[in-house]
Amino acid sequence: MTTQTSSALKAKVLITLKNGVLDPQGKAIGHSLAALDFKGVGEVRQGKFIELELNQTDPDAAYAKVEDMCKRLLANTVIEDYTIEIIT
Amino acid sequence: MTTQTSSALKAKVLITLKNGVLDPQGKAIGHSLAALDFKGVGEVRQGKFIELELNQTDPDAAYAKVEDMCKRLLANTVIEDYTIEIIT
Repeated sequence: MTTQTSSALKAKVLITLKNGVLDPQGKAIGHSLAALDFKGVGEVRQGKFIELELNQTDPDAAYAKVEDMCKRLLANTVIEDYTIEIIT
Repeated sequence: MTTQTSSALKAKVLITLKNGVLDPQGKAIGHSLAALDFKGVGEVRQGKFIELELNQTDPDAAYAKVEDMCKRLLANTVIEDYTIEIIT
């Protein structure tokens, strides 16, 4: 395996359900926290976190590429939002 | 439902697999990206993102509480790491 660490960027993608979309998984976590006697917990929402290594040097091109990935595969844009962070 | 928006904090928790722990879900995403003709994608890792509303005013106390939640419920600390961010 050859790696080019010097020219690699990392992308962190957060995928969250849009406001108003029911989140049963978040609700389940909230109930479990209540059952464990954690008080004062309001709404809980669960999302996904995806970390990618990109063999690319240009952060702007990397951002555009990851946004394309989100639209075509990573996120369901009907019900989900995504946030992309490129780490140089 | 009574809400105390003025005294509420938000916590964002990222739960990721520790380095060295096999991540089949991340691998599957990587293969799907390759099948969609995205070039130059290195390792892909998938984690969880949990957003909590806390009826609390002290960020330090909130951090300690969320850390306790991570240890007891949210993360499997044998194979997972967690990162907590408190938003005031």
